[in-house]
Amino acid sequence: MAIDFYFDFSSPYGYFASTQIDAAAERHGRRVRWRPYVMGAVMKITGARPIPDRPLIADYGKRDMYRCARRLGVPFELPSPFPVPSVAASRAYYWVADRDETRAKALAGALFAAYFGEGRNIGEPEVVAGVVEQSLGIGRDAALEALKDPSIKERLRRETDAAIERGVFGSPFFLVDGEPFWGHDRLWEVDEWLRTGGW
Amino acid sequence: MAIDFYFDFSSPYGYFASTQIDAAAERHGRRVRWRPYVMGAVMKITGARPIPDRPLIADYGKRDMYRCARRLGVPFELPSPFPVPSVAASRAYYWVADRDETRAKALAGALFAAYFGEGRNIGEPEVVAGVVEQSLGIGRDAALEALKDPSIKERLRRETDAAIERGVFGSPFFLVDGEPFWGHDRLWEVDEWLRTGGW
Repeated sequence: MAIDFYFDFSSPYGYFASTQIDAAAERHGRRVRWRPYVMGAVMKITGARPIPDRPLIADYGKRDMYRCARRLGVPFELPSPFPVPSVAASRAYYWVADRDETRAKALAGALFAAYFGEGRNIGEPEVVAGVVEQSLGIGRDAALEALKDPSIKERLRRETDAAIERGVFGSPFFLVDGEPFWGHDRLWEVDEWLRTGGW
Repeated sequence: MAIDFYFDFSSPYGYFASTQIDAAAERHGRRVRWRPYVMGAVMKITGARPIPDRPLIADYGKRDMYRCARRLGVPFELPSPFPVPSVAASRAYYWVADRDETRAKALAGALFAAYFGEGRNIGEPEVVAGVVEQSLGIGRDAALEALKDPSIKERLRRETDAAIERGVFGSPFFLVDGEPFWGHDRLWEVDEWLRTGGW
């Protein structure tokens, strides 16, 4: 059974988790279903605000992000603007994933790298289409068309609604056989849960 | 040099951390200075709300608390009311700590156990005085007197102000040679930081 990996494309901790989760699951013979969703919709329900808007937490968060990136050895520069809407990136993901999940994961990695590694604004559909072209060799016009496709829009809406329905509210957020884990800093616990079968 | 362990007596994750941090520090030849503070004062600045008031997060938080307690093998029952004001418990802590830190840690453990193990409302000065008596053999009247002592009140106010000054905002929150770590789920990282000297 697959592990569900929920994340928002604008989330640094979602990015960090994306570099670890498949290998972690593989150690236990499990695969991972990546499920980008629009965390902004959920934050309207939880009342949570983006990290940069939260006094004291903003400074800590920034320091912690760089520290996490150093520990994992992954490129990271806090982009500006941050955060950005994750709708276009998420739509592109599902557009590709419904045909080929492996290629969709490659795209997700490229989108994260574009935003957190190169500071490109993946909130913009044009930037997303450019990343699709560079990483998958799909023409950018086809990608731009897909981002406006009502059925793709509906696909993402359904994913986000289903996430809320399942109690998902953060990024990253993992569901392991129905057991929820919130936060990149719980990856060790997901690992332990898979190893032991839970407690 | 001591590690600073900030916590609020009404915080389940502060309680969980309190059962682990001294042993973790000891593995690296370090000692821990316990620093209870009034997180409510900080939440006015950060805008954070108590876990039970946050949709979606409330359900997850409750589930996660019991899961953490099972993993650590410590008694836990989510008390009612929750959270409670931590002023009386914190004052009692500093009243004892300024004379004997070891006894103050024993008191802190007894206060956490009273609240999260037995559901006694440590928001009430009378309950705190009872725990002081039971755990340290100090008369409850002396304790009740101390909780109203202006210098003890001032002591806690200074601690809370100093915590904010240092960027502390959560429970637990660790400062390791100036490096901040937020959350019980970062204890492994504190351990790793102490082992390696940081990154």
